[in-house]
Amino acid sequence: MNAYSQLITALRLLPNVGVKTAQRMAHTLLHQNRAGAAQLVQALDNALKNIHNCQMCHDFCESELCAICANPQRDPSRLMIVQMPADVAAMEAARCHDGLYFVLMGQVNPAQEMDLSSIALQQLVARLSGSPVNEIIIATAHTAEGDATAYILAELFKEQPYKISRLARGIPLGSELEYVDAGTLAQAVYERNLLKETTGE
Amino acid sequence: MNAYSQLITALRLLPNVGVKTAQRMAHTLLHQNRAGAAQLVQALDNALKNIHNCQMCHDFCESELCAICANPQRDPSRLMIVQMPADVAAMEAARCHDGLYFVLMGQVNPAQEMDLSSIALQQLVARLSGSPVNEIIIATAHTAEGDATAYILAELFKEQPYKISRLARGIPLGSELEYVDAGTLAQAVYERNLLKETTGE
Repeated sequence: MNAYSQLITALRLLPNVGVKTAQRMAHTLLHQNRAGAAQLVQALDNALKNIHNCQMCHDFCESELCAICANPQRDPSRLMIVQMPADVAAMEAARCHDGLYFVLMGQVNPAQEMDLSSIALQQLVARLSGSPVNEIIIATAHTAEGDATAYILAELFKEQPYKISRLARGIPLGSELEYVDAGTLAQAVYERNLLKETTGE
Repeated sequence: MNAYSQLITALRLLPNVGVKTAQRMAHTLLHQNRAGAAQLVQALDNALKNIHNCQMCHDFCESELCAICANPQRDPSRLMIVQMPADVAAMEAARCHDGLYFVLMGQVNPAQEMDLSSIALQQLVARLSGSPVNEIIIATAHTAEGDATAYILAELFKEQPYKISRLARGIPLGSELEYVDAGTLAQAVYERNLLKETTGE
């Protein structure tokens, strides 16, 4: 196999990249932007050498502990469990959680026999053993996979003394009802918040 | 900037890759398939070191001349001009051209002031000077960009003694008319092939 075919084969290891996309990428890398290609080689090589999982939260980091886990200002009693590193970044940008995180690095696919090897359950159990955590916030996505993952986590901790919650489902802030999908609308009605009890009784 | 951000930045140099896709790619490369990531580093590094342009046809190759240009069995009098390396592969698979190729490595975008720097015109002129080519087959795509590129090439060779043709437009083999788009149908009628002259005159 020549160098070009080897490159196409390697590019196809990327998610959602087929032959056509790999060819377009190879053209960009070899013809339009060889400096960028060298930068990618360098960055990926460097990432492979230096990026590991944080020993506490399992997120990507370059030292033993990530900046959040190493921060003594964070509340160690509340642990938010998210699927991916990007979820930590999104949550940090919202500035609504001052506890710690655990990153599952995946989700359970209910269509594939609930294969638990896709999430870092062992690391999560090890993380919790002997820890001061007393509240677990399950912040998986509100999708079929996220629901399945949340179910697995809730089952896992059923007998444990943790307070457990999951992110609220409902209408996003700033949304006009007209543009909200039917499933979200139904969920928002079903989980409506009581503002005042009836006074008739 | 840490190793992870550098990797995301480098992945975004790939065509049509935004932040979300780059994050998904980084997750695949760093978490699910580190061996594949090492393979990509190796393949891209190797490609950058070994892949250059063929001195005759401008296609990607690892030696001075590609296998087609170096093949004495090919007819050197007919030159087919294509846009991309993949077009050469497609044409070779069709086994309908025994001449040589020239790869433009791009196309002219009529929406961007017909910038000619995106195609290898200089290399094409150099390739033709003193060559035994007497027929040029323009095999650019039948898109706005391919049409513009074909126009530029036809203009370029207007005063030259080459026989020049372009690939036929029409209904693909095996197509039911019902499923052919209107533009192609109209073109097929407009460029219909005469089977028999009228006998009335």
